[in-house]
Amino acid sequence: MNTAPTRATHAAVPVSPTRGRLRPLGRPEVTLTGGFWGARQAVNAAATLPHIGHWLEREGWLPNFDRVVDGTIADHRRGRQFSDSEVYKYLEALAWEIGRTGDEALDARFRAVVDRVAAAQEPDGYLNTAFGNAGQPPRWSDLEWGHELYCLGHLFQAAVARARTRPDAGDGLLDVARRAADLVCVEFGPEGNPGMCGHAEIEPALAELGRLTGEQRYVDQAALFVERHGHGVLGEIEFGPAYFQDDVPVRQATVLRGHAVRAGYLSAGAVDVATETDDQDLLEALRRQWSATVARRVYITGGVGSRHQDEAFGDDWELPPDRAYSETCAGIASIMFSWRLLLADGDPRHADLIERTLFNVVATSPSSQGTSFYYANTLHQRVPGEPADPDEPSPRARASLRAPWFGVSCCPPNVARTLASLDAYLASADQHGIQLHQYAPCTIGTRLAGDRPVGLEVQTDYPTGGTVRVLVTDTDEAPWTLTLRVPGWAPGAVLRVLGADGSAVEPDRDVQPGAVVVERAFRVGDAVELELPMAPRLVTPDPRIDAVRGCAVVERGPEVLCLESTDLVAVSGGVVDDVADVRMNGRAAPVEADGRVLVPMVRLRTSEDPWPYRADRVDGLDDELLVPLVPYHDWAERGPSTMRVFIPLADG
Amino acid sequence: MNTAPTRATHAAVPVSPTRGRLRPLGRPEVTLTGGFWGARQAVNAAATLPHIGHWLEREGWLPNFDRVVDGTIADHRRGRQFSDSEVYKYLEALAWEIGRTGDEALDARFRAVVDRVAAAQEPDGYLNTAFGNAGQPPRWSDLEWGHELYCLGHLFQAAVARARTRPDAGDGLLDVARRAADLVCVEFGPEGNPGMCGHAEIEPALAELGRLTGEQRYVDQAALFVERHGHGVLGEIEFGPAYFQDDVPVRQATVLRGHAVRAGYLSAGAVDVATETDDQDLLEALRRQWSATVARRVYITGGVGSRHQDEAFGDDWELPPDRAYSETCAGIASIMFSWRLLLADGDPRHADLIERTLFNVVATSPSSQGTSFYYANTLHQRVPGEPADPDEPSPRARASLRAPWFGVSCCPPNVARTLASLDAYLASADQHGIQLHQYAPCTIGTRLAGDRPVGLEVQTDYPTGGTVRVLVTDTDEAPWTLTLRVPGWAPGAVLRVLGADGSAVEPDRDVQPGAVVVERAFRVGDAVELELPMAPRLVTPDPRIDAVRGCAVVERGPEVLCLESTDLVAVSGGVVDDVADVRMNGRAAPVEADGRVLVPMVRLRTSEDPWPYRADRVDGLDDELLVPLVPYHDWAERGPSTMRVFIPLADG
Repeated sequence: MNTAPTRATHAAVPVSPTRGRLRPLGRPEVTLTGGFWGARQAVNAAATLPHIGHWLEREGWLPNFDRVVDGTIADHRRGRQFSDSEVYKYLEALAWEIGRTGDEALDARFRAVVDRVAAAQEPDGYLNTAFGNAGQPPRWSDLEWGHELYCLGHLFQAAVARARTRPDAGDGLLDVARRAADLVCVEFGPEGNPGMCGHAEIEPALAELGRLTGEQRYVDQAALFVERHGHGVLGEIEFGPAYFQDDVPVRQATVLRGHAVRAGYLSAGAVDVATETDDQDLLEALRRQWSATVARRVYITGGVGSRHQDEAFGDDWELPPDRAYSETCAGIASIMFSWRLLLADGDPRHADLIERTLFNVVATSPSSQGTSFYYANTLHQRVPGEPADPDEPSPRARASLRAPWFGVSCCPPNVARTLASLDAYLASADQHGIQLHQYAPCTIGTRLAGDRPVGLEVQTDYPTGGTVRVLVTDTDEAPWTLTLRVPGWAPGAVLRVLGADGSAVEPDRDVQPGAVVVERAFRVGDAVELELPMAPRLVTPDPRIDAVRGCAVVERGPEVLCLESTDLVAVSGGVVDDVADVRMNGRAAPVEADGRVLVPMVRLRTSEDPWPYRADRVDGLDDELLVPLVPYHDWAERGPSTMRVFIPLADG
Repeated sequence: MNTAPTRATHAAVPVSPTRGRLRPLGRPEVTLTGGFWGARQAVNAAATLPHIGHWLEREGWLPNFDRVVDGTIADHRRGRQFSDSEVYKYLEALAWEIGRTGDEALDARFRAVVDRVAAAQEPDGYLNTAFGNAGQPPRWSDLEWGHELYCLGHLFQAAVARARTRPDAGDGLLDVARRAADLVCVEFGPEGNPGMCGHAEIEPALAELGRLTGEQRYVDQAALFVERHGHGVLGEIEFGPAYFQDDVPVRQATVLRGHAVRAGYLSAGAVDVATETDDQDLLEALRRQWSATVARRVYITGGVGSRHQDEAFGDDWELPPDRAYSETCAGIASIMFSWRLLLADGDPRHADLIERTLFNVVATSPSSQGTSFYYANTLHQRVPGEPADPDEPSPRARASLRAPWFGVSCCPPNVARTLASLDAYLASADQHGIQLHQYAPCTIGTRLAGDRPVGLEVQTDYPTGGTVRVLVTDTDEAPWTLTLRVPGWAPGAVLRVLGADGSAVEPDRDVQPGAVVVERAFRVGDAVELELPMAPRLVTPDPRIDAVRGCAVVERGPEVLCLESTDLVAVSGGVVDDVADVRMNGRAAPVEADGRVLVPMVRLRTSEDPWPYRADRVDGLDDELLVPLVPYHDWAERGPSTMRVFIPLADG
């Protein structure tokens, strides 16, 4: 293996490969300054993080660590086997947030939690509240379901986040992580236990800890775990070995399958390993899997994992909207996978999928208040949901309105750590210049190869508007490149390059989806403007997606829109109160008025047959209505409703 | 409660109400003599029953009873908590089969199994191999999941079957059942444990045991159990209280919901209770639930229970073909419910659903050899299945080809007992005459009110042909009625009444779906002929069944047909090998040639897009093919294939 690191970043990024096409930029090099995502970061800080802290205490998942210390854990442990991981994801989210704002009260909270966690670590580095303590099952005795290595993976990611945001914090978290990682390398190393975890996660985490610390063993151990998949290492379970990707070796697989979060985390770790070991075959296998998955197994929201039963990808084209599982965490796992591929190969299609998933999965999960969440993200709500009990954990997939907490509550802290670290997903650098991957108001300042300064300010109200203005705030006099992503949904985009006086310094360019590169000797005050076409558009699915045949979706910019019964009731004066009762007129284009997207619809008249399959069915249509759609991420904010993303066409 | 029984039957029927519109006829009054179902009874006897006996021994489920006797059960028990019930369903199937054929070897086998079961019964009547023995959880300690009462329910049904087929057998099974039932009445009576079983089944079983023995307590206990549902009697489970119908009281429910087998068995028991107690309100509530369920929650096959995760009914209109669970046992439970309603009210729609479910669920489960089975009955197979291991139990819903046995193996013995008792579902009597509900070659001989003899012979090759000839073989000289069901799918049927010389004695009648009554002073040799239209027909679903929008199904007679890739490969010379690649020309009618139904189809040409949702999608159609369809119950008999029942229309 070629293991020599070629570069390192000290920015606050969750992923910092030693090689690859692009170098990620994070704070302080990139600072998200507001807009759609800035508002969500603010809610995350003000509401979601305290909310998670409250529930971790309340449900006993954080106090479990105290119970280990006082020796009462066997009798008093609460939560599922993997509840430690929620504490670690919470720590990771706090670390990013402290790095973002420098909030000292939050820092004190962080340190207090670290102390409680650290106190529960065994002298040899073992750390888990569900195994290995007196009266509990022994360590590593249930690799299929025990989640011990999975939990440690989240611990390592928290430690990496802390080390990259407050490298001199001295709180000991990195030491806790290293001791645990060292133990894992001994226990599960080449001469040790040949097993692996039933839930991938330690793979990307160990790789990142290796990147951070320079400990090659951690990367090697990550590689070992990646390569162990697909050899029947784990025992038989009801859902079969594909559930934990133990059916086919990673480098031989053709598509993502099985449990969607596991699949995403494993793929992310496999990219890390491929990058660190310069394993182009493995990287190419992962790229192929990504493409095959995106072509046939992804919801229009970017969501993945169709099946409720085992939270798994289904077969190709199995994408039911009404029973879409589309777990929030699976969306985040998909982003983790795509982001690593993007850094490795620079292909903007990876950033396209990240954008789609951010706006339509990650932004959908939390309520506007930031204190309730979707775990599963259905694309079709048939029956108005019951409000979740604000004072009780909900079953993870039953709440049809957002719930404050879940018996399995992986999603809220996963959303929190993602939002708190979102600055790190906007931009990257290579030796030629800067690449913008996601559009949000932000400032960028870094140095290109040769210690050349570059500074940018991105001004935009995207996705409300489609203009992205990139102002050059620092540069030397030599040429460099500014690369902008034209999203796949945006044919017809226009690029302008403006001088400091506002006049065009090049002819406007019609640009096609993909990466558009502006190479110039920029001057401070120059600006590049990308004009993205924001008219709402009607999108139809591949005809092999059986579950949405005859339907279309309205999208606007990166946002998927949906029809919610609340709006049907309003425009019909209460006559139509269920999304099942209308069809979209697919021949008339959606229109935009007063900031709303309006779609012409007709009412469906159905007969109430005693038997619903007939040789002589006649259904009628009448009553044209102009109905507003809302962004999918805003649905279920106005009380119980029925909802659909895929809207049947009157002529479909 | 009005508890006076008004009549009793000694025929070999599984359900013998003391009141109601219709009196069921069973052996010796009705004898199925061949045809579609006669052939399946023969395979059931020759192959399925020995197969089940073999697997019950092999998997240890029958030996569990021996382990109770020798005191080693706690350490050596095998199978899930409810495995006793498979032994009892096997006994029930054997009882019906012995009654059908008088097979003395089978009778010896039956007695041997009864001896082993009886030996495991406690002196106070308790009988279960998973609870209550030394080293096991105490009796009744897990009503939610323990299935003790459920198992006893199947024991009672076996005892009833035996008592009605060999009343003087002297094998002691009825005594075993009575002792257990007596214990249940004490333990769970009005003054006892207020609980109930998490899986309904003892309700119809206790009611029937009460009918058989005249023990009113058994009926009363069945009524208590029925009425306890819906009051949160059971503890919380992940799937919620609807899973075991503990969400809404039976008489207040509006539709079947939750676990589909549980819902069907409970509803059957509730009809029994309503009938025995002359509770018209309860009966009416159940009729409404049946209608609401049939209108919105039943597959075109008659199958019920859409969801894999909790084997449950979904919401209204939630009927995905590709993830159809449609458990075989749920189809049988639905038949049990419908049959009891039919006996109570005579509505031929109940018999319509029974016919549909028999031909398209019950006949689909077993292979033509009778030694492998579908547990779940998908309506759309996307990926050719792997053959099931002939020597290992399969996960219940994973096998996409029929499997020999399952870890949860309720379906094979349920099919076996249903087929062995099928004579009892063909016909009934009332004080005016005879009703034919299902068409199969059979002989009928009984006595009407006033001890009036009546004899019939039904001659038909239905469903190959559509002519059902009912020959009068015995009658007195006074008028009586012969009632024939015209299936809901059969508008355009014609009825002829013929004299012994073959000439029409009445004008031919065009008859509409429902019950058609011929009232005459019949003479021996008279015949009534029903001519059902057997041309294949194109059926479309209610537009609110989203998952099959733009699709149609071809039916022929009572059979649902399907497209199997095997036939596509054959007619296209291998060019088209996946059912995903064709569309049906809905404007051209299916044709019939050489006993096959042929449908014009066109090949779909799709682009392989990297992203499957597009604003500018164009898909092409070409290559017209004439493709044979096969009855759904015959699919997967020719090796791995893809299959669909709902076929997308080219113009849909």
